Parts: sequence; structure tokens; C-alpha cells
Amino acid sequence: MAGYAWISLTTDYGLSDGFVAACHGVIGRLAPAVRVLDVTHAVPPGDIRRGAAVLAQTIPYLPPAVHLAVVDPGVGTSRRGVVLRTPNGLLVGPDNGLLIWAAEALGGIRDAVELTNPEWFLPDVSHTFHGRDIFAPAAARLATGADPADAGPAVDPASLVRLPEAVVASGDGWLEAEVLTVDRFGNVQLAAPGSALNSLGPALTVNGVPATRGTTFGSVPPGKLVVFVDSAGQAAVAVNGGRAAVVLSVAPGDVLRIDTAA
Amino acid sequence: MAGYAWISLTTDYGLSDGFVAACHGVIGRLAPAVRVLDVTHAVPPGDIRRGAAVLAQTIPYLPPAVHLAVVDPGVGTSRRGVVLRTPNGLLVGPDNGLLIWAAEALGGIRDAVELTNPEWFLPDVSHTFHGRDIFAPAAARLATGADPADAGPAVDPASLVRLPEAVVASGDGWLEAEVLTVDRFGNVQLAAPGSALNSLGPALTVNGVPATRGTTFGSVPPGKLVVFVDSAGQAAVAVNGGRAAVVLSVAPGDVLRIDTAA
Amino acid sequence: MAGYAWISLTTDYGLSDGFVAACHGVIGRLAPAVRVLDVTHAVPPGDIRRGAAVLAQTIPYLPPAVHLAVVDPGVGTSRRGVVLRTPNGLLVGPDNGLLIWAAEALGGIRDAVELTNPEWFLPDVSHTFHGRDIFAPAAARLATGADPADAGPAVDPASLVRLPEAVVASGDGWLEAEVLTVDRFGNVQLAAPGSALNSLGPALTVNGVPATRGTTFGSVPPGKLVVFVDSAGQAAVAVNGGRAAVVLSVAPGDVLRIDTAA
Repeated sequence: MAGYAWISLTTDYGLSDGFVAACHGVIGRLAPAVRVLDVTHAVPPGDIRRGAAVLAQTIPYLPPAVHLAVVDPGVGTSRRGVVLRTPNGLLVGPDNGLLIWAAEALGGIRDAVELTNPEWFLPDVSHTFHGRDIFAPAAARLATGADPADAGPAVDPASLVRLPEAVVASGDGWLEAEVLTVDRFGNVQLAAPGSALNSLGPALTVNGVPATRGTTFGSVPPGKLVVFVDSAGQAAVAVNGGRAAVVLSVAPGDVLRIDTAA
Repeated sequence: MAGYAWISLTTDYGLSDGFVAACHGVIGRLAPAVRVLDVTHAVPPGDIRRGAAVLAQTIPYLPPAVHLAVVDPGVGTSRRGVVLRTPNGLLVGPDNGLLIWAAEALGGIRDAVELTNPEWFLPDVSHTFHGRDIFAPAAARLATGADPADAGPAVDPASLVRLPEAVVASGDGWLEAEVLTVDRFGNVQLAAPGSALNSLGPALTVNGVPATRGTTFGSVPPGKLVVFVDSAGQAAVAVNGGRAAVVLSVAPGDVLRIDTAA
Repeated sequence: MAGYAWISLTTDYGLSDGFVAACHGVIGRLAPAVRVLDVTHAVPPGDIRRGAAVLAQTIPYLPPAVHLAVVDPGVGTSRRGVVLRTPNGLLVGPDNGLLIWAAEALGGIRDAVELTNPEWFLPDVSHTFHGRDIFAPAAARLATGADPADAGPAVDPASLVRLPEAVVASGDGWLEAEVLTVDRFGNVQLAAPGSALNSLGPALTVNGVPATRGTTFGSVPPGKLVVFVDSAGQAAVAVNGGRAAVVLSVAPGDVLRIDTAA
């Protein structure tokens, strides 16, 4: 098979230890011609939902790749490791919901296999670092053209673990939606698509605080709330020059309500 | 045109979201042979001055490149996007002062164009992420040899936005200067060049605290202040084994006074 | 000489300044074909012990390389710069103990030279940034095949600075060991090898807190302490879904006691 020139890497390993470097090193040893593109390693420890959201929103902009993602609080237990095949690339990681949204962003899951073939692992497999010992070597093999079918037995895609659906509800002039992510700038991204804003007026309240429908931060005066469609196509709330998550005092998982102002 | 083997990347995007990866991905898709060198992504959100200083001080050590920088609180408003041509490389980013000091470090601006040609953008341009949708694809095109003149109309370099000059004043045995940056180690870098220290004595006070003129941290006992020429050629103050910014309680923008001790 | 395709880079420079990028840039200019693999740049400022531990535990998984490491509180003083030759790669950095554990992980020091040849440095050497001005150019030269013997005079390996040995003691059913590192997840790694756990029972106390011998985080219920052999082969303590360093209130350098429960 042709393989891939790139491996993308998404983890909750942080950058203060050598964990990410060990994965880079394993890939560099097994697939020296492949390039690694780091998506992020700052997923909060064990926060599968956040890792899934970041990867799914970034993946449309990445080159064709084997996408390796590890946010894996169940490492070393009976949770499965999987390879998912999509029309636009492969995904490798734990079967805990982390990969599903990204697979959908790549066109959906064609087929899946469980990663069980020990010939694909490092010779010594630790109980707590499968990113280095199982997933990175598997991604390197896949990038160099190995057939996913050799990684282990087929898995019914319907059996894959999925994350719970986020709360999204709307009615005449209002929208309620779960906060999906808060980014570096304190911008609040909702689980609702941008189109959910279409039925709302230009003057709004967000959890009771006055806000304006706009297109970018500078659509409103400094310090004011703007409701907009963000760069991932989601409904979002920002403060021009400020941090909406602080002004609204919300965090991922909270439900936020937007009303058309009276 | 010949193009460049490297693109450098300086942003305030942080590393906890997928923003930097999306820019890497766009470049990887459009210019697969080009290598990306990350300058920093930890510029404080919207801090143009800090981004300008870090890039200008680092750029002399980088290979010939297209230097892409995005600290862009005005994204999506009428602020211009620009390409600056220098004798030693190209600069791409918003016209808000971010690129000017770096252009001067590369030998000055030869000419400038406004980045307006939609054929240079991604097909869908968001209102809030021009780094991904406009600047990264432009940098990729330039690195692969596209002519900056095709990016848009010429801009008079004199019309480019510039940052305000920092406060620097000196007299008989004293120096007052704005704090330009505080680095990871708490070292305080002044807006004054290292030569501004030449007229001061070996025994000094910094905001009234005793200090010694030296060459490196170990020039003074642990815990003591040293005034020195830093690795970017600027006048600076450090504490051996400590954090000068904490000892002096100063931050960028504050003005600091050094006196020859009586 | 053949040289190396990779340079690994370990520092305490952080990612918020341009220091790491300047090192990447110097390498890119001098050795454009060489790839840089970042181990970590988040070693706490001046924490030689932490830098040494991270590098030594990561290096077995890296490709053959010139390993450049700079945690260098004595920069610009009389402390030596050195190149260490091992059976599996070269190490470059300050002679302050930072490189020794990594050299042992690579099979031990074959010979060492002091880095004194000014032809190997940048033309202008600052007093405070030898990573950029001395060590990075030296690593680039070595990666492109230069002979370490040309870097400067031979150094007796026995004369190299070594870090103090960590406290490790054990007896009938107990183990006392210094905390070597605390990782991103709050897992507490001890200076004792994993084999030190063999003589302890399955039911334990760690500083008096009940704990269980296991293999991974999920070996115990959420919130409970597990004592295990970590992915670097060291004895370690974790909390399933929590932070052992917080639960136990320990930091690197503290001594921790594990007892077989009565």
C-alpha cells in the first residue's frame, strides 16, 4: 500500500515530560521518512471530549495522514486499541470515543480493526504508556504502507465506544447549548452549529448579559459580548479584547442560553 | 522565483488548541517540501509589542525564510494584511506593527504589498482565523516561489502601522528605560541597547536596589542583581538564581531606572 | 565521519521566548538536512536533575542522534562545555551533571572532550546564551560528521561533574526512596528501580496512606493509590484519575516511604 507522508499526533501528555518526544522517537526510528505534525499535547489529562473536539476541528486542514491520538485514562485495562479507516486517512488510538468525531470529519468510518498483533508493538510493552509502545509503532507501520487488516481482527464500527451527545435545544428566539470548548483566548464554543444562530435577532442576551450578533471580535466595542460563527463553523461567544469564559463564568460542559433581546 | 526552504511561525495562538496545527497543516498541504520553524506561540493574547520583540530578536538566527507572524486582535476588521520584502527574507502578517522591527532586523523594508488576492486564500475564509485562511496559504505560496507582487497592490512602506517608541532616557550616570520583555527566567530586558550601559559605573542601583555591572548571571553572588548586555544586545537586569522581574516587581511597559551608586 | 540524521534538544528555555527557535535556526543554517527532535523545553529553570532524568528516560526511544542538552545556570562562568561520545550517540552540553545519566543510558562514556575550539562557535558569543552560540553550532557540526576530537582537548571522564546520588533504602517489607520526578499527570516517580517493589506485599501504605500494588492506573478504584513499575522502569505511585503528588503532598527531592500493610 502507498502509506502516508505524515503522522499527526494529539495527546494529553503535556510538554514538560519526555512522553511526546518518546513517541516522536519511536516514529523516527521506524519510519524515518515520515513527518510528524503535532496537533496539541495540552488536552487536559484524561479529557477525552476535549481531545476529540480539537482533533475533529483541526483534521480538515491537515494533509492526508495517519492520525494518532492518545487520551487514554484506561491504559493497560481491557479497553481496546483500534485503527479506523476513513476515505481520507487512518486513525489510531484507544477505543474510548476519542477518534469518532475526527473519523466523521474525514468522511466516516469505512472499517475498523482492533490493534492486537504483538508484532506491531515495541518488544517490551509497558502497562501505562501504550502511546509509545503500541500506538506510535502502529502508526509508523501504517504510514509506511502496512495494511490495517494485519493489525488485528475486524471490529464492527457500531461496537465502538461513543461520547454522549451534547445538550443542544432551541425554540422561538432562543438557543440552549452545552459549552464544547474554551480556547486560549477565552472564547466560548458551543456544541451547536453556526446555523443555529440564524433564527436569533441581532440584539441578544447570553445568560442574561447583553450581546450582539456579529462576525468577529471587532464587531463590538471593547469589553462587549459578540455572538458569532467561529472558525470551526460552531456557534460561539467572545468578548472583544477580553475573555468570554470569564465574563460568563462558564466552562466546558456548562449549558449556556442565548435569547433574542426583548 | 526561487522561494524559500523554510517558513517561520510566530503567533499568540498558544498550544492548547489546534490553531497552530491547522496553520502547519495548511502549509503542509500547499508546500509539502517546506519546513516550518516555530518561533513561539506563547505571545500573550493580543500583545503585538511582545510578538514584535521576540520575532525581531530571534530572526537574525533563523535560516532564510518566509516569516509568518500573527498576533491579530483586529482580525476580520479593516486592518490590512501585508507582505513585506527585505534583503533577507519575506514577512507576512497583519499591518499592526508586528512585523516592522523584524523587517528592520532583516535589513529594512524594500517594498510592501497588501494581501488582497483571493486566489491566494483558502476557498472559505473565516472572519476570525486569518492565520489559517489567509496568512498561512500566502506564506506557503511565497515559499514555493510565488511573486509577492501577485498577492495584491503595492503599499507605501511609510503608511504601515508602527508601534509607539519605547521610553529611553539617560544622563550623567543614570539610565531610564522601559521594560521591553521579561523572559522565562524572569530576566528584565530594557528597550535600551547594551551600549547605554557604557557610561554607568560598576556599582549601580536599579530602582534603588544595589546591583553590579557584570557579564553573566554568575558575575554576582546568588540572589544579587546583575546589570548586563543580554544575548539580544539589549541592556538587561537579572538575579543570579532568581527572578529579577519579581525582585524589582516590574513588568513590560514599566520604566526602570539605573543609577551609578554614590 | 558519517554523522547523524537527528539532533535531539532538551532545555529549560521554555517556549514563550525565542530561545528554542534560535537554536533550531542555528542548526537549520549550519546543518539544513538534519532534523531536530525536541525532548522538552519545560525543565524548571536551572533544574539540572530534572533535565538529566527526562533526557535519560527518553533517550532509549530516540533515533541515533547528537543529543544537545542545555540546563545551564553557570553559563558564562568557568564551567566547561563538553562533548561525550557513547556507543549509541553523542551528547553535547554543559559539564554540570546534566548529560551523565543519558550517557549511561546510551551504554556509557567512551571518551569526552572539552568544547573550546572557537571555530566551532558562532562568530559572536554572548555571555548568557551558549545554547545558541556554542552548543547548537557544535551539535550541528557533529551531526554533519565533524570529529569530536576537533572540538577541543580530551577530558578524563572521571573528572566530569556528577549529580549527587538519590536516597534509596529498603528493608524487610519497606522501601524509602527520593522522589525523582512528578509528571504531568501528578504521578510520583521514585529514584528506586521497579525491582525494589518485588519484596513488598500487595497491600501497602505510602507515607501512611493505604495503597495497592498494581500494574496500571485502572488496577485500583478511582481516587485510590496504586504502586507500580512505570514506563521508565522505575518504582512509582499514582492515583487512578487523580494526582498522587497532590494526594501525598510530595515534590521531587522529598523522601517517600512505602510499607507492606500490617
